[in-house]
Amino acid sequence: MNILLDAFGGDNAPLEPIKGAIEAVKEYGVQVTLVGDEEKIRACAKENNLSLEGIGLAHAGDVMPMCADPSTVMKEHPDSSIAVGCNLLKEHKGDAFVSAGNTGALLMAASLTVRRIKGIKRAALGTLVPCQGGCYLLMDCGANAECRPDMLAQFAVMGSAYMSGVRGLERPRIGLVNNGTEENKGDSLHREAHAILKKIPINFIGNVEAREIPFGACDVAVTDGFTGNAILKLTEGLGSFFSKFLKGMFTRSTKTKLAFLMVKDGVNDFKKMMDYTEYGGAPLLGIAKPVIKAHGSSNAKAFKNAIRQAKECLEGDVIGKIETGLAQMKEQMKDLPEVPAEE
Amino acid sequence: MNILLDAFGGDNAPLEPIKGAIEAVKEYGVQVTLVGDEEKIRACAKENNLSLEGIGLAHAGDVMPMCADPSTVMKEHPDSSIAVGCNLLKEHKGDAFVSAGNTGALLMAASLTVRRIKGIKRAALGTLVPCQGGCYLLMDCGANAECRPDMLAQFAVMGSAYMSGVRGLERPRIGLVNNGTEENKGDSLHREAHAILKKIPINFIGNVEAREIPFGACDVAVTDGFTGNAILKLTEGLGSFFSKFLKGMFTRSTKTKLAFLMVKDGVNDFKKMMDYTEYGGAPLLGIAKPVIKAHGSSNAKAFKNAIRQAKECLEGDVIGKIETGLAQMKEQMKDLPEVPAEE
Repeated sequence: MNILLDAFGGDNAPLEPIKGAIEAVKEYGVQVTLVGDEEKIRACAKENNLSLEGIGLAHAGDVMPMCADPSTVMKEHPDSSIAVGCNLLKEHKGDAFVSAGNTGALLMAASLTVRRIKGIKRAALGTLVPCQGGCYLLMDCGANAECRPDMLAQFAVMGSAYMSGVRGLERPRIGLVNNGTEENKGDSLHREAHAILKKIPINFIGNVEAREIPFGACDVAVTDGFTGNAILKLTEGLGSFFSKFLKGMFTRSTKTKLAFLMVKDGVNDFKKMMDYTEYGGAPLLGIAKPVIKAHGSSNAKAFKNAIRQAKECLEGDVIGKIETGLAQMKEQMKDLPEVPAEE
Repeated sequence: MNILLDAFGGDNAPLEPIKGAIEAVKEYGVQVTLVGDEEKIRACAKENNLSLEGIGLAHAGDVMPMCADPSTVMKEHPDSSIAVGCNLLKEHKGDAFVSAGNTGALLMAASLTVRRIKGIKRAALGTLVPCQGGCYLLMDCGANAECRPDMLAQFAVMGSAYMSGVRGLERPRIGLVNNGTEENKGDSLHREAHAILKKIPINFIGNVEAREIPFGACDVAVTDGFTGNAILKLTEGLGSFFSKFLKGMFTRSTKTKLAFLMVKDGVNDFKKMMDYTEYGGAPLLGIAKPVIKAHGSSNAKAFKNAIRQAKECLEGDVIGKIETGLAQMKEQMKDLPEVPAEE
């Protein structure tokens, strides 16, 4: 098993990806190939006294800028680490690709080279978000601002495959994010999606309201990329708002600082629960091979965990599970009119 | 100034509305008329040793059930406190109406009797949500799951009028909730809305991401009712999740309980900041007279504050400000094609 890692993605490249790769090789026994400027990778490793023994290198002379238009990735940046990584994945020179670079460019490059799984209308970005008792998969969380009902149904099938293949859940509970629990709630997109979700072979538990999601109401929260993006960002924003409040509360005086020492374990539990690095990155689901988008601010630990996540995608046969789910969905949906695929 | 208060709306009716009315009369010197079953109101007041002196009563023999289809309010429940209250408002027998009852029914009854302000396509529900440094107005937060760009622009004008008229802000900062700060971000609804918002005479600060909203990024967060509903409910859900965590952290042991006593002020400040009763209710904007939707779980204090809010809407001439804003918007938009009003 060879995991390709973009050495030039994210705010802390290339040092943290290199460190993450070294740790992952040691800890998980996987092969890792760093994709990026070879000379710079070697120089950075040397400077930091890191041995690249056992780590593969694949040269990519360019870097896709974070703010560049994603649609330019293959034409204007064909030598970027994202484009090269996706091409290597396509050519079977790696089994999965992890990058903390430009999300849109990663989605675009993977869709154009590795291609989507047959039958998938649009690839989607899933994010594991902490909640009471663990985490839930929020998808789509930003790849597709405009969605059709059948796309939401495919997100559900993909999310179910991921949570069963990687997180080991037997029958992941799939919820549709909506503005009420009754079937007829929401706009036409969500009403139609609800009708499809009821028919397909997943454990659909119905509509979920955003209020219930932090309490672990579902294992997969299915939503369009616009709402999903708002949910993800508001969760981050309120989490950071609360953390700031906690900090302010405990640093008011000597007395409150003492109080902090007395509840330190609890605060640390909270920090650990909210720590995105624990869960790795965001799987880009719908692509024919595992692609993981690591957080832009990933450190070595986050990269290591994203590599573990790629390994788990392969071991849990997430792609195969998605294909099976799609075939079952097609079988049960054959009375419904076919919706044309979108490019 | 006579504020009509639905005595049979919300989980704690009629006792808490009665208490809220009595407190408001004392504290704000307004006239309050309780709308609902007279006999039951008198009996409840007597049972609780409350004097109704100075409080008006307007009889309504029926109550609109919380879960009933809102569209049935005028035909099947014409004697409900919501329908009667709206009719009294229409007939100038009151200056504003406050209810903690069925939100959809209140919107429907107000739209059908009091009617919308001339030119307003759809009334919207604004909610004051706590954030760093105070609160922001989120609108629409659920009245209109499906929106058009010009509706979002009207929400902005109405929100601006409210925050200037009631909260005294000179130039309320209007943000459009979107999945990125750049102009071209979002789905077609949000891109088109952005283009209109730039042209109209409000203090439009551009797109805001949900991550920034808890930190007070804008005074009015303009959004469609579907996304707004998700934002409101997720804020409530994460707030309650966080409170639960705090409680768990401080009740672990005798030591942590002691720590709680040492930071109690800070915890109380947080509770106060997150307390919806401080801000009153949600203004239903776009109706020709002030209508306030109080929270379903309102207590006396929340009703009192919602009455104060109705008074402030009248004193701050929110309706007049909306009319002025609409006229200015029309003037600046006259090159753009007219979008037909929707019923």
